[in-house]
Amino acid sequence: MTAKLLSGAEVAQAILAQAKTDADELKAKGINPKLVVFRVGEDPGSISYEKGIIKTVNDVNIDFANYIFPENVTQEEFIAKLKEANDDKNVSGILVFKPLPAQLDEEEIKYTLNTLKDPDAMNPANLGKLMIEDERGFSPCTPEGVMEMFAHYGIDLVGKDVVVINRSVVFGKPMAMMLAAASATVTICHSKTKNLAEKCKAADIVITAVGRYGMVTPDMLNENAVLIDVAMSQKKDKEGNFVLNEKGKKIRTGDSLEECAEKAAMITSATPGCGGGTGPITSALLTKHLIKGCKMLNGLL
Amino acid sequence: MTAKLLSGAEVAQAILAQAKTDADELKAKGINPKLVVFRVGEDPGSISYEKGIIKTVNDVNIDFANYIFPENVTQEEFIAKLKEANDDKNVSGILVFKPLPAQLDEEEIKYTLNTLKDPDAMNPANLGKLMIEDERGFSPCTPEGVMEMFAHYGIDLVGKDVVVINRSVVFGKPMAMMLAAASATVTICHSKTKNLAEKCKAADIVITAVGRYGMVTPDMLNENAVLIDVAMSQKKDKEGNFVLNEKGKKIRTGDSLEECAEKAAMITSATPGCGGGTGPITSALLTKHLIKGCKMLNGLL
Repeated sequence: MTAKLLSGAEVAQAILAQAKTDADELKAKGINPKLVVFRVGEDPGSISYEKGIIKTVNDVNIDFANYIFPENVTQEEFIAKLKEANDDKNVSGILVFKPLPAQLDEEEIKYTLNTLKDPDAMNPANLGKLMIEDERGFSPCTPEGVMEMFAHYGIDLVGKDVVVINRSVVFGKPMAMMLAAASATVTICHSKTKNLAEKCKAADIVITAVGRYGMVTPDMLNENAVLIDVAMSQKKDKEGNFVLNEKGKKIRTGDSLEECAEKAAMITSATPGCGGGTGPITSALLTKHLIKGCKMLNGLL
Repeated sequence: MTAKLLSGAEVAQAILAQAKTDADELKAKGINPKLVVFRVGEDPGSISYEKGIIKTVNDVNIDFANYIFPENVTQEEFIAKLKEANDDKNVSGILVFKPLPAQLDEEEIKYTLNTLKDPDAMNPANLGKLMIEDERGFSPCTPEGVMEMFAHYGIDLVGKDVVVINRSVVFGKPMAMMLAAASATVTICHSKTKNLAEKCKAADIVITAVGRYGMVTPDMLNENAVLIDVAMSQKKDKEGNFVLNEKGKKIRTGDSLEECAEKAAMITSATPGCGGGTGPITSALLTKHLIKGCKMLNGLL
């Protein structure tokens, strides 16, 4: 059997289209949703990431600004600016880029960030809201992207056995909370888990986020399984050397071997031929969160 | 085989003894740990619960006060008093009794409560701290009591398969977060879970918190299993009628049948002959949390 390919790009398109409709409606009412990025220094990776965000929010008609601090910014200066943005009625969401330089206290920063302007769930209070199923909270975008995938493709979760291979605070733990709230039976697995293959084989749905190509192999899946692979990895051969494509570049993959697409019932993974993975949903959700924050701040939610 | 009985009362005694030592040490430094209860009205159940708390904190040399509000207290009055206690340097912890009358907005109250003075983890920010493993947070006492039980009896969790039958915010979800952080492989089960008996039978540790006597039967356990039953229930016969003792009173139980003590390797449950359950640990942990809060507030942690 060949798996149905689940397309994160298709789900992302639907989310972005809705965000654009919502942003246009808000603007017609004189309300301008606006994202502000806090960035320290000129790290090329951060600048490239920021460019991607600018394109995404511009495409859906959400305004953008950035506050760029010098590398030697003090905690007082950073917090003062953050509080200003917290209180600024024209700001709907704030993204603080990490890592931060050593002199900044991330602990104080994350708890200072206005919980209603926190589209990336940096403030732990938003993780608490996720746990109590408070709909006015923000969830981390990667696990929420998996839930969007299930919803888009009509994949029922009630009573399903779901294995999550990851226990991090950005993915596995919030993913487990969302799945339990959706009435799935969820098992949180990790490096200390025994008989992982057996657990996956018995599952209706396997969600993996390890970052190691080959982590999930076809013999770990049953023929009715849905495999959601959110990992970003690179292809290696059996000796552990990178496999290069015809242009001499590394090949992007997820955790899954290509052959998983011949075994599972449904699959998405960044591994070639496996649907592409959930990455595009993660960035699209930023726009959905910004609209939600903007509506909450304006008494429309 | 007969299970080793795990005694919640024994664990609680150890926690209370440590709290008393800590409180005495703080008082010798001129610091008085103090619990304040916020209670609305004169509900007999609440008053009885409060009396138990007063005895517990008095026994370990922690000070106590209560703010008693009339049934018609306004949100403004309640919040004003809460903020006063939040800022009062002589208050180490605040317990808000529930349920609250309809005119009070519990949402605002729980987010207003000072996270450092929140021994019962009412403020969702403390659940967020649990998720990110921030040691300056407070966890809900019931699941933390289970972790205290494991620690006291030297029960290793690394790589163990643990089934948790409960997905509530006060128990199952935080329990799962604690177990995953302790490197157990945790499965969150609930009313929609299929093949529950099979899942329990395969587990090294089963933790149940349903509140239904007979929920866990010996055939659901393997002979090496550790069964932690935190439920408070009453004994019923097969027809669903309460079974009464020789004095005509209902018989307190957990979720487990008595016969589980003949099957598992270790057990604790409120069911007669099963070790007594974790209840005593839950109330003892309040004193541990008060000491912790008092130390944090005084820069000693």
